[in-house]
Amino acid sequence: MTISASERTRVVRGAKRSITEQQTINAILDAAMICHVGFVMNGYPMVIPTCHWREGDKIYWHAHSKAKNIVQTDDQQVCMTVTLMDGLVLARSAFNHSVNYRSVMIFGKAQEITDEREKTRQFKLMIDKFSPGRWDQLRPITKTEVKATGLMELDLTEVSCKVRNEMAVDEVEDVSWPVWAGVLPIEQQFGNWQVNTDTTADYALPNHPDLDQ
Amino acid sequence: MTISASERTRVVRGAKRSITEQQTINAILDAAMICHVGFVMNGYPMVIPTCHWREGDKIYWHAHSKAKNIVQTDDQQVCMTVTLMDGLVLARSAFNHSVNYRSVMIFGKAQEITDEREKTRQFKLMIDKFSPGRWDQLRPITKTEVKATGLMELDLTEVSCKVRNEMAVDEVEDVSWPVWAGVLPIEQQFGNWQVNTDTTADYALPNHPDLDQ
Repeated sequence: MTISASERTRVVRGAKRSITEQQTINAILDAAMICHVGFVMNGYPMVIPTCHWREGDKIYWHAHSKAKNIVQTDDQQVCMTVTLMDGLVLARSAFNHSVNYRSVMIFGKAQEITDEREKTRQFKLMIDKFSPGRWDQLRPITKTEVKATGLMELDLTEVSCKVRNEMAVDEVEDVSWPVWAGVLPIEQQFGNWQVNTDTTADYALPNHPDLDQ
Repeated sequence: MTISASERTRVVRGAKRSITEQQTINAILDAAMICHVGFVMNGYPMVIPTCHWREGDKIYWHAHSKAKNIVQTDDQQVCMTVTLMDGLVLARSAFNHSVNYRSVMIFGKAQEITDEREKTRQFKLMIDKFSPGRWDQLRPITKTEVKATGLMELDLTEVSCKVRNEMAVDEVEDVSWPVWAGVLPIEQQFGNWQVNTDTTADYALPNHPDLDQ
């Protein structure tokens, strides 16, 4: 995904969002594997990392039923933040150092999904996000497993998006200061796959998503 | 850093922490470049991504003075969460899929640091975390810049740490299910450095930290 410098630190919410802005938000959400879900518990802030996935204009995450700290946010206000760190921005002054990043914040009331059929459909979307086509290769999910897994849904209605994707921006009088300035891009990739030690036969390697950062 | 499987999902807090546990926590905090700071604003949860750095048993982050959403947490309860995503764990059942990760949550009241000398000393620590030795090469920071940058401090007293670092763990009866199982490690690295286009001379490339994920 390419975002021009002019889109730097754009903040957009709700109805004011254009198709391009929506596409930018969706691309960030789909590229990221983890999010941080924030909520208020007994008056205290709590921020939990988890995996998310998107379908249309809704975002989902799950938790084991025991993890009440996530599932009890049903109908509570949450703030889900997704951040992709793209590079270190080294300027000539400490003050103008920065990072290139893409970040989305989603605000709203989370709803717990309890319908077995819908939960199963969503869990398939999740598995296939992380390894396309894998769901159909797995030992089929059981009703007990579906029941034991909580599923949360959040509308992509109140959303803000911030992107920085440019070189260091220095004061004019600092540009000739004798130090290297520029960007150290940060890239993410898959390492060597590690087959489970309890494997009893050779199977085809799984598909995996592209990592764009 | 190597963490044995036995340390999986360990949670440790305060006085019960051993030296090894403290070293694990510090290593995660030092390896991560960004954190997510959660706090309560007008009753609503807010989760902001930012860069952090550590000195001894305290963690720090900064913000432009305009970014009241961070600095106004002075003396408010915050939850800072730091997460390193290390790999996708592909099991034979959807239910036993997981991720390998290292995560630290820090709870407490954030304090704003206002002393100019201490702020300047901390900003040096931050710059040198991201590019060791760089501070001394930069155009010196001004009093105005120090004043314009808010600095927050949080004690590493109430801390929980969770780590998962192992293969897929399947039900015994699933192990022979005919599908690949194992771990897809996720690695982070620096890409090709991009020198600023307004550069007027050749300068030595900056130092940079090792990325251990």
